[in-house]
Amino acid sequence: MLIWRINVHERSLERTPVPDGWKTLGGRGLLARILLDEVPPTCDPLGPHNKLIFAPGLLVGHMLSSCDRISVGGKSPLTGGIKESNAGGSTGLQIALLGIQALILEGAPAGDEWQILVIDSSGARFEPAGPIAGLGVYAAARSLRERYGDKVAISLIGPGGEMQLRTAGIQNLDKDKVPSRINARGGLGAVMGSKRLKAIIFDAAGCDKPPIRDPEGFKAAQKAFTTALMNHPQTAVYRDFGTAGVARLCDTLGAIPVRNFSVGQYEDLESISGEHLRQTLLQRGGKANPTHACMAGCTIRCSNNYAGENGEEIVSPLEYETISLMGSNLGISDLDDVARLNWLVNDLGIDSIDAGAALGVAAEAGLLSFGDAQRAGELLREIYTGSPLGRMLGHGAALTGQVLGVRRVPVVKGQAISGYDPRAIKGTGVTYATNPQGADHTAGLTIRAKVDHLDPKAQIDVSRNAQINMAGYDTLGACVFAGFGFAASPESIRDLLNARYGWSVDTGILQQLGRATLKLEREFNRRAGFTAADDRLPEWMTEEPLAPTQAVFDVANEDLDGLYNW
Amino acid sequence: MLIWRINVHERSLERTPVPDGWKTLGGRGLLARILLDEVPPTCDPLGPHNKLIFAPGLLVGHMLSSCDRISVGGKSPLTGGIKESNAGGSTGLQIALLGIQALILEGAPAGDEWQILVIDSSGARFEPAGPIAGLGVYAAARSLRERYGDKVAISLIGPGGEMQLRTAGIQNLDKDKVPSRINARGGLGAVMGSKRLKAIIFDAAGCDKPPIRDPEGFKAAQKAFTTALMNHPQTAVYRDFGTAGVARLCDTLGAIPVRNFSVGQYEDLESISGEHLRQTLLQRGGKANPTHACMAGCTIRCSNNYAGENGEEIVSPLEYETISLMGSNLGISDLDDVARLNWLVNDLGIDSIDAGAALGVAAEAGLLSFGDAQRAGELLREIYTGSPLGRMLGHGAALTGQVLGVRRVPVVKGQAISGYDPRAIKGTGVTYATNPQGADHTAGLTIRAKVDHLDPKAQIDVSRNAQINMAGYDTLGACVFAGFGFAASPESIRDLLNARYGWSVDTGILQQLGRATLKLEREFNRRAGFTAADDRLPEWMTEEPLAPTQAVFDVANEDLDGLYNW
Repeated sequence: MLIWRINVHERSLERTPVPDGWKTLGGRGLLARILLDEVPPTCDPLGPHNKLIFAPGLLVGHMLSSCDRISVGGKSPLTGGIKESNAGGSTGLQIALLGIQALILEGAPAGDEWQILVIDSSGARFEPAGPIAGLGVYAAARSLRERYGDKVAISLIGPGGEMQLRTAGIQNLDKDKVPSRINARGGLGAVMGSKRLKAIIFDAAGCDKPPIRDPEGFKAAQKAFTTALMNHPQTAVYRDFGTAGVARLCDTLGAIPVRNFSVGQYEDLESISGEHLRQTLLQRGGKANPTHACMAGCTIRCSNNYAGENGEEIVSPLEYETISLMGSNLGISDLDDVARLNWLVNDLGIDSIDAGAALGVAAEAGLLSFGDAQRAGELLREIYTGSPLGRMLGHGAALTGQVLGVRRVPVVKGQAISGYDPRAIKGTGVTYATNPQGADHTAGLTIRAKVDHLDPKAQIDVSRNAQINMAGYDTLGACVFAGFGFAASPESIRDLLNARYGWSVDTGILQQLGRATLKLEREFNRRAGFTAADDRLPEWMTEEPLAPTQAVFDVANEDLDGLYNW
Repeated sequence: MLIWRINVHERSLERTPVPDGWKTLGGRGLLARILLDEVPPTCDPLGPHNKLIFAPGLLVGHMLSSCDRISVGGKSPLTGGIKESNAGGSTGLQIALLGIQALILEGAPAGDEWQILVIDSSGARFEPAGPIAGLGVYAAARSLRERYGDKVAISLIGPGGEMQLRTAGIQNLDKDKVPSRINARGGLGAVMGSKRLKAIIFDAAGCDKPPIRDPEGFKAAQKAFTTALMNHPQTAVYRDFGTAGVARLCDTLGAIPVRNFSVGQYEDLESISGEHLRQTLLQRGGKANPTHACMAGCTIRCSNNYAGENGEEIVSPLEYETISLMGSNLGISDLDDVARLNWLVNDLGIDSIDAGAALGVAAEAGLLSFGDAQRAGELLREIYTGSPLGRMLGHGAALTGQVLGVRRVPVVKGQAISGYDPRAIKGTGVTYATNPQGADHTAGLTIRAKVDHLDPKAQIDVSRNAQINMAGYDTLGACVFAGFGFAASPESIRDLLNARYGWSVDTGILQQLGRATLKLEREFNRRAGFTAADDRLPEWMTEEPLAPTQAVFDVANEDLDGLYNW
């Protein structure tokens, strides 16, 4: 494996061996190390000193179930802090096949022309994007597939990334060539836009899988892991209902966002539940029925193709975060409406969580009525125009709230809270508050922890463990749901890594990687100017009771500040 | 003197003796002490925990030349840090006559109805604002004078403050009853708006001047100070040209903002110079000709009434900061145009510096052309509508730059840089970077220091001294220009304070007050989450050379971080 370093100003490529300090890292952990080593933490995230880095996790490249994710990182234009965002699809696998441990994009472009960066085993080249620049994600992906064929992986940005909007993500093809697997959070698409890259093509033709030091050991460990994963009851839930399976639980806990996080239970919950989604998928049919995998080899298959009444696909996939943030959070109860809004944000190439939260805030300010899906769509379409209104919304909930003067803005470190109100699931609130990434459920969701979610005293350990584990999984390249298998068979992580690399780590390796990653990330943020004042939920969430639990977020600040004392 | 504490929720008044720790403080120093003692530094600036405080300086109440200023403070919605903004006019005098050392407004209003707070010797009462709510500053001031008579002082907000825009100021009547003396910077008008107060009436009828312990000593010291002030050559410059007298010097240094701070010398400088302004005033006439005082007793008389070709007043006063930020910074060379834009921002009740900087940023993003005064006026009028575009602009340069994705945004700590480009006057750049208030020339302008303004090594001491002195003057209630007199006669400060209060301070008192104030302010900001990362100029100013000097801001970060080591 090598480090590939590309300067977008010089259009130069340098391939170097992996430095010693980076060798035992991958994915999120490697990003944190590189960013701390190379990016000035106070730099302008959209200026010449920021870098955009792609790094596959340590286990990527072998089609292990749910373990081929690609981590992308940089300094976030949304939070001003460190950012890692990972996605499924085919990019992780292809980049690992190319033998790239990290692809580092640096410098500022010399001109304004949009480029496509093509990476194959022979090296890298820049090609003018031509008419592909300016296209929405779906049309751009179609054109790119025509130009580069159907064997390559593609990471691309939409109009949101081109406009350097703070919620812009990077989209990757899933195994069925749909550009739906998104490094969604924190504005990394804007960083890619600041480098004037419309797309990156990863062509691993002729490349072999990364070498495995002990193939037999690897195979045995893979089997143990896959068996554990398949046997986990939660795996079946995701296979049947996708991520939407969590909606009922979240509603039962009084933690689903409703009308800009003003209520925690939704009167129309059943119409947006995973159960209703499954019925709809079964009834209407579609390409994959009812669910399918986003990465080759994944046994969970939580993704779906959501078709309209005529059986034509509206969007793929339709997931819980979008359903809650653009559904109940906007008072929209028709999954067809949510799916259409989802298609729009995907085509714009922006994060559906932050876009949904921004619309919720805009509704509170009177720009739309809760429940008005048509107006929500109009406002999203305004983003294509690049108008101040469109740009404001496309920058997400924090900036929208600032411009419109709304007090009830659901963000931490400038990033929108996902579909779990932290007043009713306080452990996840601890994660939102203290994680270096800003509010993000994938940084440490606690909804399944055996704990009273309303007890402010019981959350620190729960959140800490979840955050450490997630930082570990993100370093492996493992999906959050792979964790069901790994948790049931922790020795399989040890055995996979030892077999893959010839190491001799023990079963504590997941937590070691997770702790090290969090420390590095937190240090980056400290140097960027973050303090304990940033490790807080918004003031109104500590004062405004959430029906029906009437809970406020009341985990003590001292407890939050002690989370990193481990 | 007493502390008056008004809870806007309860509509209650409590008058208490001045606590021991507050007794020797006034103005900006007292605000810093109270804010640190009473306001949670991480609170929502527009929420229930912030307080809006009015405090006259230590020398206020005696019509000493240029020494009756009113300091207003709170946590700033613009910077997120501590904020003091002081103004001339009649408010300082009246509040001192009322025996109020500090007026503390706290709590959140119970309802949405706009109120007028009336303060007289008998106490305080709330009256419904009725139709005065929603009016622009000029019409509102007219109505208030009709309702409350012409003997009272008035502090009021415009539509900007009602909309809680981050550049909203608080306007005070000058001695000629024009609502033109503005606590302009940092959004304190928005804090007043968050308390639902359209105006505060200060009626000191029947009140005596604050007691003087040694009247003869006071009179002698006053004479020494006034003589020193009158004899200072700079006093005559301000008397003749107003603050616009600095335009030529600033241009000569290559430090005047031109077209969004992209150049430091203006091809049309003469048409916006103080000399041209004076000729215009003399030619066109007007109420006071060419300059007049804003406060009773001021001998400098730097204010003016700017009349159009027909001799009708357009705005009063027209000052250098507005001329540079809304003139050269927008490529607008006609003072009539600048005066009309100035009237608009005054009527909106927003800061002309931040509004001008916001328009400069908007011009860079293509919302108007540089030089197009008509479009600039249209954009300012958009603010009245409360549209997202209008609100964006009314929140100032930082937010406008964020929404529009402009890299060249001239702000520090979220507050716009005033009319001195810090690349060519680096000492003032040090002030912008390190002062707790954010970019603000009145926090320590160094343009008249005997120093090579381009030498990065020579600026720390110069800025430190200026910042300490200014914090001292702001604590006394003295105008920055009073400093010409005090600098020439430092013992007069000692003698005035000792005579007024029966103290026995020495000539170091100005710096003692200044240092103490800065330390308190910095501590507030530290607790609010500020770090060294906030004590920086924007990245582009350290990299983009400024014609004609080709200077970048290159004072070393270590030097900036050492400023407070004294």
